[in-house]
Order: sequence, then C-alpha cells, then structure tokens
Amino acid sequence: MQSISKYKEQIATYIDSIKLDGHPKELYEPISYILSLGGKQIRPVLTLMSSEVFGSSPEKAIYAATAIELFHNFSLIHDDIMDVAPLRRGHQTVHEKWNVNTGILSGDAMLILAYQYFENYEAPIFKDLAKLFSKTAIEVCEGQQLDINFETRNDVAIPEYLKMIEYKTAVLVGAALKMGAIVAETSEENAQKIYDFGLNLGIAFQLQDDYLDAFGDVAVFGKTIGGDILENKKTYLYLKALLNGSTAQREELEAFFAVTEGDGVEKIRRVKELFIETESAKASQGLIKEYTDNALTILEALDIPEDKKELLRQFSLELMDREV
Amino acid sequence: MQSISKYKEQIATYIDSIKLDGHPKELYEPISYILSLGGKQIRPVLTLMSSEVFGSSPEKAIYAATAIELFHNFSLIHDDIMDVAPLRRGHQTVHEKWNVNTGILSGDAMLILAYQYFENYEAPIFKDLAKLFSKTAIEVCEGQQLDINFETRNDVAIPEYLKMIEYKTAVLVGAALKMGAIVAETSEENAQKIYDFGLNLGIAFQLQDDYLDAFGDVAVFGKTIGGDILENKKTYLYLKALLNGSTAQREELEAFFAVTEGDGVEKIRRVKELFIETESAKASQGLIKEYTDNALTILEALDIPEDKKELLRQFSLELMDREV
Repeated sequence: MQSISKYKEQIATYIDSIKLDGHPKELYEPISYILSLGGKQIRPVLTLMSSEVFGSSPEKAIYAATAIELFHNFSLIHDDIMDVAPLRRGHQTVHEKWNVNTGILSGDAMLILAYQYFENYEAPIFKDLAKLFSKTAIEVCEGQQLDINFETRNDVAIPEYLKMIEYKTAVLVGAALKMGAIVAETSEENAQKIYDFGLNLGIAFQLQDDYLDAFGDVAVFGKTIGGDILENKKTYLYLKALLNGSTAQREELEAFFAVTEGDGVEKIRRVKELFIETESAKASQGLIKEYTDNALTILEALDIPEDKKELLRQFSLELMDREV
Repeated sequence: MQSISKYKEQIATYIDSIKLDGHPKELYEPISYILSLGGKQIRPVLTLMSSEVFGSSPEKAIYAATAIELFHNFSLIHDDIMDVAPLRRGHQTVHEKWNVNTGILSGDAMLILAYQYFENYEAPIFKDLAKLFSKTAIEVCEGQQLDINFETRNDVAIPEYLKMIEYKTAVLVGAALKMGAIVAETSEENAQKIYDFGLNLGIAFQLQDDYLDAFGDVAVFGKTIGGDILENKKTYLYLKALLNGSTAQREELEAFFAVTEGDGVEKIRRVKELFIETESAKASQGLIKEYTDNALTILEALDIPEDKKELLRQFSLELMDREV
C-alpha cells in the first residue's frame, strides 16, 4: 500500500496535468484558476486509497478521483457566489476575480466536466459511478439549501443541523470512498460499508471543523478563530448551548447572535465561555468521538486484509487528530 | 407513426407527472415552476419522434426526452440570471420570483436531475446518452460564453457568430434527435446523420428566429418586434449589413448600436431599412434556405423507410414555415 502523501502527490500531479485550454478562454481560465489554488484534496485521496484498499490500483481510480475534486471545486465556486465570499484558500474567489456571471457559467462547465471524467470507465462502472455521483450531487445541493434556510431560522433543531452537514459535507466523503470501491469492483457490501464509514467520518470531521473554528489554535487550524461566532452561524456548539443553557445563558447567547459586531473580540470571548459553561463544547467533543467510533466500528466489518484496515484506521485517526 | 401533436401531448403529460416534492422545498419549487411555464418543448418532441423514426417507440425515449427538456430549462434559469431578464414565457424569471441564489442552486439541481433521467436505461445506452449529453452541455456553455463575449466586442466575424448559435442552440437540437437514435439502437451512421440534420436545422431555426425578431409579424411571432435591435444584438442581420454596407451605412448602423434609446421606434424602423438596403435581410433568407436545404439533403441519406423520412421532412418544413 502507498502512503497517504504518495496519493496526494499522485492526484496533485494528475490535476496539474489537465489541459484546460479550451475555447473561449473566459470559460476555462476560472476553472484552471480554482484548481491551481490547490486545497487539501482529501476527497480524491480517499478515492485512490479506497481503490487500492479493495485490491485495485490508485491509477485506475484517478479519473473518478478527479471527478470528485472537480465537483468539489464547482460547489465552492457557486457557494462562494451565494455567500458573497471574497476569499477562497487565501486568494480572490472566482466571482471576485472575474464576475458573478463567469462564476455561474464556469461552475456549470466544471460540473459537466466532472461527469466526463467517468467516461474513462467501461459502461457498467461508468453507470455505477455516474449514478452515485448524481445522487450525491443532488444531496449536496439540498445541504446547501438547508444551510441557506438555517440562516434566517431561529428554530433549527440539532437533528436538522446534523442532516445538513451530512448532506453538505459528509455524503461526498462517503461517495469518494465508494467510488474507489466501485472502480475496484469489490462486493456491494464492502462498497456500502466504506460509504457508511465515510459518512460517519465526514460528519465527525465537520463537527470538529466547527469546534476548531471556536477552540482551535490559529497557527495550526489556519483559519481565523471565532469566524463562525462572528457570522452568527448556528453550529452544533451554538444549538447545543441553547438547549443546555439556563434562560439567562440562552438569552445572552441569542442577543450576541442577533447582531453583527465590529471586531467582535469580546463577543468571541464570551460566546466561547458560554459554550464551555453550558457544556456544549464538551458535548461536541463527545459527539465527534461518537461519529469517529462509528466509523471505526464499520471499518472493522470490512472484508479486507488487516493491513488495509490499518491504513484506513491510521488515516481516520490522523484526520481527526488535528490540534485543538 | 404518431403525429407531432401526439408527441407534444406525450411529453407534456409526462413532465406534468414528475413529482418534485423533494426537501427542502426551496430547492424544488423553482424547478416545478419553470417546468409549469410550458414552452414549445420542441427538443423533447424531437427525441420521441427520432426514436420512432428509427424503429423504437416514443415511450422508450421519454426519459431521454425529459433529460433534454430539464437541461434546456436549467440553461434558461442560469442564462436569465446572466442576462438580468425579468420575464420568461410571459412570467417572472426564477431569480426574479425568488432570488439569484435560488436560481443558481435550483439550476444546478436541475442539471443533475437531467443526468438522473438517463439512469432509466441499461449501462451501454446510459453511457452513450450521458456522453453525448455532457459533450453537448459543455458546448452550450461555450456558446453562452461566446454570446457574452460578443456583447463587448466590435469585431465579431460572421463565422464566429454562426459558431456561437451552433453551440448555444443547434447542438442541443442535434443531440435531442441523436438521443432518439441511441435509444432505438440504430446504426452509428444513422445516429450521426440525424445529428447533422438537427445541427443544420437548428442553425436555420436560430437564423430565422433572428430574422423574425426584426421582420416577423408580432401577432404570429409572439415576441416584441425589434427586440434584438433595441438591445444592440450583433445578429447575422447586423453583421452582414456592416459587411455589405457602404461606409455611410456602416457608420449609421454603428451609431445606432452604440446607444440605448428609449422606445426606439425610429431606431427599429431605420435599422430594418438598412438591413434591407444592404441586402443583409436577403442574405439572411438565403442562408436560412441553405441550412434548411442542407438538413433536407442529409435527411435523404438516412437509412429509414420513406414514410419516416416524410415525417421528418414535414416537421422541418412546418418548423421553418413560420410567418414572417
């Protein structure tokens, strides 16, 4: 088995080699641009790894992995328009560098290009991949719409929030892994299990991302700490604090989340304190552990050699062992 | 063989029957809405007809026909955002009725739903359909980008214009017909020919649409006459007039197209006069006939029974015989 860094190198090299010099250039340059910004490329790495875990090669899975990465970047372009985000990976977003229309149209083209990468597989595998891809893509759209709806709702329940992050984030992690399984033509059962493994790990990952946004070490986490709090995002931490808190704590939290402050230093400090006082921070860590444990339990049931389980186990632990 | 009105009824009934009650409703309501506005549904009719022409049934082609219509409506939603268009088929556009973000996201979902309709076919046909669909969809995006580029360019050459309408409009007509051929599992040769037939007919249709926009009868054409002239659209009529005209005519035309007037009654009157004086109107009619004749010639070479050729011939003539 290859190391994870080898997979990373493989997918980065392949994506760098994609020629996007089609005409008109106004359509293709934004696609090259967003791909050139790199990113962690976790999803395509999962596809390559999964293919090898199930007895095929990472090489055979490179097209499916590329499709996943193209889709992920398509969704970033369109989401950034919707969120009016100026920056992505520390650089201008596509709609900022060009304009909204370019963002819409290049994004559309990118989604279609993603489907085209599956054409490298024979018909039965092509169909399985495209079918999983479409199902997943629709769920990601549904997740994005739920996220938008939550912005203006004050009655978001925790199960709804979990469904939203499952759709917006985790299904693509599950699909990335399942695509490796499809390419490797493993059993239906293994394919379903690796999907479920990814789904649980994806939810754990997103919960942890939310947790680190409040409690992470800026040097390690790489994003501004407290960004979600400043943007009044209704994360698990917030929803659980409302649920656990006393009337006074709830009112204080709601008051903070009803306004947009300037630099928000005091807001961030006090809201984090409330997350701790109400034990929502602790509950969040508990839930992250629960989803991670679920993933690891499913992993044990996979019908693959022990050394391959160990690779997946190691990957999961590394992924979830980011510094707080 | 069925009559064309029977195909229309079939596709309208099927599309009406589609359940779009998914969750969250904010994602699916705009899709139901745009489909409920109807439209001519020429493209799906072509798919049904083509399937029967090549010896299969319209019923078998209904899913491919639906995919084509979903794609067409997806492109309308996104194009209307880009064009800041308030109305579509006499009703509010999606981004007007809801907002731009809803238009982007519902459009995305609609493109993915289109792919899902191909899942009703077995793997080899699924692959052929999805492959043709992706190629066509990318070309439509390229055509839309070319159209956007032309707005701010003053040196658009006629071959470039023809390439733009080929990509933006005609390839989808060709693809709609070829999908019927794929579903019917006819020969590669027939499939290619019916595509070429559609491509030529599609270009003729778009040229005629531009022609009727200036010279049509408002009661028959159903759109405001002179809309393209008011919007300074660089259609074939305009480009050919610039090419054919004297320096004085060219300067007059360019002066008209450099400004946006109020009601533009005089502008429309004089520009149409210039289209006639420079014989660009005549050239346009000649070119429409040329592309229509090309389509009819290709039709003759199809390996199908004479009564089926007759149906396609009749359809072409009806389509092109709209009142001027």
